[in-house]
Amino acid sequence: MSVTVSRKQQIELITSVLRGLGASEEESFIQADVWTEADLRGIHSHGVQRLPVMVTRIQKGLLKVNVKPERTWTTDSVLNVDGKDGFGTAIAETSLRELTPAARKHGVAVLTVRNAAHIGMVGYYAERRALEGLVCIGFTTTEVLVHPFGGAEALVGTNPIAIGIPSSPRPFLLDMATSVSAMGKIIDFKHRGEKIPEGWAIDKEGNPTTDPEAALHGSLTPAGGPKGYGLGISIAMLAGLLPGTEIGRAVLGTLDTEYRCTVGDLFIVLDPKAFPGGETLVAGVKGYLDELRASKPGKGFKQVSAPGDPENRLREERLANGIPHPEEVWHDAERLRSTICK
Amino acid sequence: MSVTVSRKQQIELITSVLRGLGASEEESFIQADVWTEADLRGIHSHGVQRLPVMVTRIQKGLLKVNVKPERTWTTDSVLNVDGKDGFGTAIAETSLRELTPAARKHGVAVLTVRNAAHIGMVGYYAERRALEGLVCIGFTTTEVLVHPFGGAEALVGTNPIAIGIPSSPRPFLLDMATSVSAMGKIIDFKHRGEKIPEGWAIDKEGNPTTDPEAALHGSLTPAGGPKGYGLGISIAMLAGLLPGTEIGRAVLGTLDTEYRCTVGDLFIVLDPKAFPGGETLVAGVKGYLDELRASKPGKGFKQVSAPGDPENRLREERLANGIPHPEEVWHDAERLRSTICK
Repeated sequence: MSVTVSRKQQIELITSVLRGLGASEEESFIQADVWTEADLRGIHSHGVQRLPVMVTRIQKGLLKVNVKPERTWTTDSVLNVDGKDGFGTAIAETSLRELTPAARKHGVAVLTVRNAAHIGMVGYYAERRALEGLVCIGFTTTEVLVHPFGGAEALVGTNPIAIGIPSSPRPFLLDMATSVSAMGKIIDFKHRGEKIPEGWAIDKEGNPTTDPEAALHGSLTPAGGPKGYGLGISIAMLAGLLPGTEIGRAVLGTLDTEYRCTVGDLFIVLDPKAFPGGETLVAGVKGYLDELRASKPGKGFKQVSAPGDPENRLREERLANGIPHPEEVWHDAERLRSTICK
Repeated sequence: MSVTVSRKQQIELITSVLRGLGASEEESFIQADVWTEADLRGIHSHGVQRLPVMVTRIQKGLLKVNVKPERTWTTDSVLNVDGKDGFGTAIAETSLRELTPAARKHGVAVLTVRNAAHIGMVGYYAERRALEGLVCIGFTTTEVLVHPFGGAEALVGTNPIAIGIPSSPRPFLLDMATSVSAMGKIIDFKHRGEKIPEGWAIDKEGNPTTDPEAALHGSLTPAGGPKGYGLGISIAMLAGLLPGTEIGRAVLGTLDTEYRCTVGDLFIVLDPKAFPGGETLVAGVKGYLDELRASKPGKGFKQVSAPGDPENRLREERLANGIPHPEEVWHDAERLRSTICK
């Protein structure tokens, strides 16, 4: 059974739950908007289904509401933020807004965030900067879920990267984990009683597996073998070590309800105006993407897509017709509202 | 038949050929050093075997010697360089040296290079910055050799990324193309009369192939499917469009002897001292890499490696015992010297 809700309904529901727990209007809205953008694009693993875990984390004091992050400019172009265990989403977004004038003045500026909750879909922030005419490269860390290339134990996060670049009609947005798949997708296969494709995961002994249950107790395979592995650990160093937080097994607190969140985030923001190709960037990006889309499809494909094309189409459709959720996801959220907002 | 030469012999041979063609001492040495570092690591596709093509390019005026690049600071943190068709290697390296004080002052600085020849192994520059205590992310473009995910035509470069981060005893260095394999490796399989592994390439009709000859007329497959594709085109935009040079099919002049070089390069340099984790960065990187190396190996592997481990081991061995080359590669280079340096 499924329930279809509008963007507005979903944002209102999330906002009222978080407001009911003492979060500020800004914290609540940004958190709701980040999750809703994920659900609009079909990335439900990063959407409202995360609300119950967040509520528990707030109730246990692992995630603090109504927080004033400590922002320190170490140079005129580098902003380092201690999130004081607050909402990663609101802290990242408001800190990026504070960073923007520096990026425009110097052509480049960098933000790090530590001691803040999971920022959700990292592409959210990169796309918003691109909508403002800036280029943004974002990195974030996660709990260890991925085995090293040639390894048998989970020691690397899915550590995603997002790159937003101004284009038309919407920005170019790459938003990808460095593993072949995500744990969320493997859970979906398990629920449907299907086997996972070969090459997605290994079991806890290190053997390749197509059994989702064995994969859940094992680890995810890095995308492109040594390449996803190399990129994943590089992102761990950039987004974990530079901001002064944890790396590897010490990264905790996004999926559980036991630990403070120790992920880290790093954003590099560039102003195209500082570059020789800045004036023609949008035309160049659009022209190249259109050339890719118009090129000859490979076996089994109808058309070549640019990154984000399917998600953008789904987003348009869902903005018009609503977002479908499994009944229990939506009812869980409604139940939280009725308990919290008496 | 193979010939083994020392690092010093190789640098002397390359330097004398380039000096004989009018290149400055600095241009000649940096070009020789970049190629020799690649050969020391076993990356022969980016080593001295490229000398004959470069000599022809210089003789045809496609690559200019003794060039003074035009360096423009558009802000205090962004340096844009017009290489005037000179040596990409020397221009990238000397421009990065000029960029370094800005990175130290502002915590971050960015270099773009256009109108310069192929910079060779992009990791060369990232590793040198890391040896100076800086973090460096480098992107560069190449001719189209890779098909889009779901596509049948070569429309994307192998567009590599390098990330250098200070560590001990040597820096951490990731240096990878965004395709599964490189054209150079496919040529090696052809020479050995062997089939290429599945998933490396498609033929010119868009069908997967294990025939190296068919692959050479077709295109390379992006690493991790949509992920290598998305990253590859992002790098094309960052390193091609922002510097104000070409993208896609208009990128030419690294492998041929017909066209001006229209690749682009973009480097982001960060000073760890501007970040909360700067002081403990080296210890953190080393600790994590050692943990990865000590972890349980997967099926068919003896040990987990960190990126660059095999290359660094080979480099040490070759610094001690010399670099082996196929006889014809070395003799071609010697013949060029005797023709040019009469």
